[in-house]
Amino acid sequence: MNIAIIRYFLGWIMNVEAVLMLLPCLTALVYKEANGIYFVITLAVCGAIGILCTFRKPKNTVFYAKEGFVSVALSWILLSIFGALPFYISGEIPRFEDALFEVISGFTTTGSSILSDVEALSRCMLLWRSFTHWVGGMGVIVFMLAVLPLAGGGYNMHIMRAESPGPSVGKLVPKVRSTAKILYMLYFGITVVEIVLLLFSGMPLFDTLCLSFGTAGTGGFGILNDSIASYTHLQQFIITVFMILFGVNFNVYYLFLIRKPKEAFGCEEARAYLAIIALSIIMIGFNVRHLFPSLLEAFHQAAFQVGSIITTTGYATTDFDQWPEFSKTILVLLMFVGACAGSTGGGMKVSRILIAVKQVKKELGNLFHPQSVKILKLEGKKLEHNIVRSANAYFLAYFFVFAASLLLVSLDNFDFTTNFTAVTATINNIGPGLNLVGPTCNFGGFSPFAKYIFMFDMLAGRLEMFPMLLLFAPSTWKKN
Amino acid sequence: MNIAIIRYFLGWIMNVEAVLMLLPCLTALVYKEANGIYFVITLAVCGAIGILCTFRKPKNTVFYAKEGFVSVALSWILLSIFGALPFYISGEIPRFEDALFEVISGFTTTGSSILSDVEALSRCMLLWRSFTHWVGGMGVIVFMLAVLPLAGGGYNMHIMRAESPGPSVGKLVPKVRSTAKILYMLYFGITVVEIVLLLFSGMPLFDTLCLSFGTAGTGGFGILNDSIASYTHLQQFIITVFMILFGVNFNVYYLFLIRKPKEAFGCEEARAYLAIIALSIIMIGFNVRHLFPSLLEAFHQAAFQVGSIITTTGYATTDFDQWPEFSKTILVLLMFVGACAGSTGGGMKVSRILIAVKQVKKELGNLFHPQSVKILKLEGKKLEHNIVRSANAYFLAYFFVFAASLLLVSLDNFDFTTNFTAVTATINNIGPGLNLVGPTCNFGGFSPFAKYIFMFDMLAGRLEMFPMLLLFAPSTWKKN
Repeated sequence: MNIAIIRYFLGWIMNVEAVLMLLPCLTALVYKEANGIYFVITLAVCGAIGILCTFRKPKNTVFYAKEGFVSVALSWILLSIFGALPFYISGEIPRFEDALFEVISGFTTTGSSILSDVEALSRCMLLWRSFTHWVGGMGVIVFMLAVLPLAGGGYNMHIMRAESPGPSVGKLVPKVRSTAKILYMLYFGITVVEIVLLLFSGMPLFDTLCLSFGTAGTGGFGILNDSIASYTHLQQFIITVFMILFGVNFNVYYLFLIRKPKEAFGCEEARAYLAIIALSIIMIGFNVRHLFPSLLEAFHQAAFQVGSIITTTGYATTDFDQWPEFSKTILVLLMFVGACAGSTGGGMKVSRILIAVKQVKKELGNLFHPQSVKILKLEGKKLEHNIVRSANAYFLAYFFVFAASLLLVSLDNFDFTTNFTAVTATINNIGPGLNLVGPTCNFGGFSPFAKYIFMFDMLAGRLEMFPMLLLFAPSTWKKN
Repeated sequence: MNIAIIRYFLGWIMNVEAVLMLLPCLTALVYKEANGIYFVITLAVCGAIGILCTFRKPKNTVFYAKEGFVSVALSWILLSIFGALPFYISGEIPRFEDALFEVISGFTTTGSSILSDVEALSRCMLLWRSFTHWVGGMGVIVFMLAVLPLAGGGYNMHIMRAESPGPSVGKLVPKVRSTAKILYMLYFGITVVEIVLLLFSGMPLFDTLCLSFGTAGTGGFGILNDSIASYTHLQQFIITVFMILFGVNFNVYYLFLIRKPKEAFGCEEARAYLAIIALSIIMIGFNVRHLFPSLLEAFHQAAFQVGSIITTTGYATTDFDQWPEFSKTILVLLMFVGACAGSTGGGMKVSRILIAVKQVKKELGNLFHPQSVKILKLEGKKLEHNIVRSANAYFLAYFFVFAASLLLVSLDNFDFTTNFTAVTATINNIGPGLNLVGPTCNFGGFSPFAKYIFMFDMLAGRLEMFPMLLLFAPSTWKKN
């Protein structure tokens, strides 16, 4: 393990975080909030540590997969610890584990909160909270790759693969750095469109920024206690559309950008994703029909909640914990499905579900014709053995982490539905679950131990298990 | 598809069922119960159909994997339909779907019941109900292979593979028929030992028969409303030990039989199985300590419930739904693990869990050293690619069936914990779940639609998904 290069890498992460904190500082200036000082302090600390660590580039620049995974996992932990400091030292969130929970929930775009009164936070804190969603959505390291001349070497791909969601990370263009740039350009562009549309709908600028950050990163932190319920129907509708858009594989937008609409519309994963959404909205819409004054209203609510859950955003316009069990079960299942690979959404990803369906179909065929060799295809291309293998290993690791988490949080002695959906909501980076962690409740009631389990799950979910699991593998820390 | 040979095969199944019904007929004679007449009627009908179908052996004896899977799936459905008739026509279970549920639960060794008052059944019905566990435990087709000179051909292996649990079905000896004979000899022998020990403990003969059938098949139907709670501690202890014994891979007993104790003690799956049991008993024992007068009593109860759940038997000596959430969560997780492959237990099987753990470990290693080739081993032997592939396909199919079932039964609008554990209890062939399907409750409250879903799950669980799924694949019914 090349410790020197990891330290250097983490130094750059600190520098980036210092720069990111300029935004809440600016917010505090605009709204004349004294608590902005805590961002200035944290920024200074981050910057100082960052400059110290990056002052001299290490001589040994060996950077293999091992260093890549460890760097990514530690980056996210470090980002969160320093990101939590303003909440904690300002006293706006008095307990450190709560502040850390909140910021990990932010960066991992989960949106689960320990706050029962969000509106009590100052504006600079609220903006930072939502901004972490935006940064975490596309990935801070992808951002670093895009803007910093870190290194030319082949290691860029290692770290991009460790941070980016999905069974196989494709480069849009041959160079990793250019790919990262294109992704962030698209991300920035679509976010701006949402901000503008929300402004036109009559929403105040501060709200448009926070909510658009939360939508773009498929995060889910709101700035009001009732999440999105008190905004107008038009505003809710705009957010619905953008949540769903940010759950689409960004490859699709790139294909539009380079004027290949036929290929864009043909994307198998995106089509499956949209089909699942449509089917879920129809089933829930009719199932909750009796709870709303009109069928249109029922479908409006169904669409918002389905869009919010499958993209793993977690905004809510109604307390879906009160819905019939059939609708709630659809939502719980959607939590596992998640959005497309290569989007900002979490969950298992639609493409992995497709790989799973194809494997089962193939096995059924194999039982009848053991000698036949059938090739698995996705997006018209042959699925390589190592992609199928790693998708299966992901599923298995996922269920082991899920089972272990469920067992450990059950020590708090809450009911099974609460525990099950709380783990589901955090490991899939959703936000709310059912019962005690339903849309009108929060995670504040859990013990500190359970909260740390949830923090691990949020990070494991966002980084798709392996980088976080590797931190606990003894071989990671062995000398070569 | 060779329909003629399937008809011939199913005819033999009917003949076997007719013979099996002699036992409840005899019971009715001994206890002078008039309801025995319904077994005589059903026996006559089964026998008549059976003789008609097997009178002439079809000329076309082609029997491929396709015919094998379809025969096995249809056998189990047919067995259950005719097995349900005595309950239904006697009126002891007035609704047909309830009678069918009860018998499918019996043959699949699930032990879930729709009866709120078991003690109201006549003795011949009770005995038949428990006897279905014994028959289903080792498998009715394995039985047929052992005793009938059906055919010499290679197709024996197809049907044995379709009925026997586990990721890879090994033959103990080169001939399938001899393997089946050895398995049934061991099965019969250990059951007799349990009956004798229970007789010595002072239990009446009728009870020893019913409870031993339920233990041996890891079924779980009791003959008292409180399951096993009112028997003595010694009797409960004997049952605990035998439940655990029947969850061990029968290969282990065969190895003892041929005097290879070293190999028997070395069985990786059995060791993991016993380690999981020991660990669970310790964790639960201390967790429920405060609910019982002594630590010994707490451990006695923990051991019974752990043994009952991991082997997927489903007997209960206490209402574990009242236990702390931590203990309940352990039990729910054990429901998924299940017993050893090649035992009479259900669930995913310990060996599949081992294959999963090894895959995750291998993947973690692969991330660091993408070029290295690591070989997966189980029981000291290389795991063939097709075993790993089919284990993964099983996991994926399992979760799809699970998710679909959960969604469909949620239409009854019971709570999430009830639905989740009801599907868990049926698909893993356990018996009781939590909340409304807890150890003191039953499945009677579900709608007929939900009951049919559970019946499918029980059959899919017992036959390990694929035979039942193939019944719904259009290609199964296509002409070649």
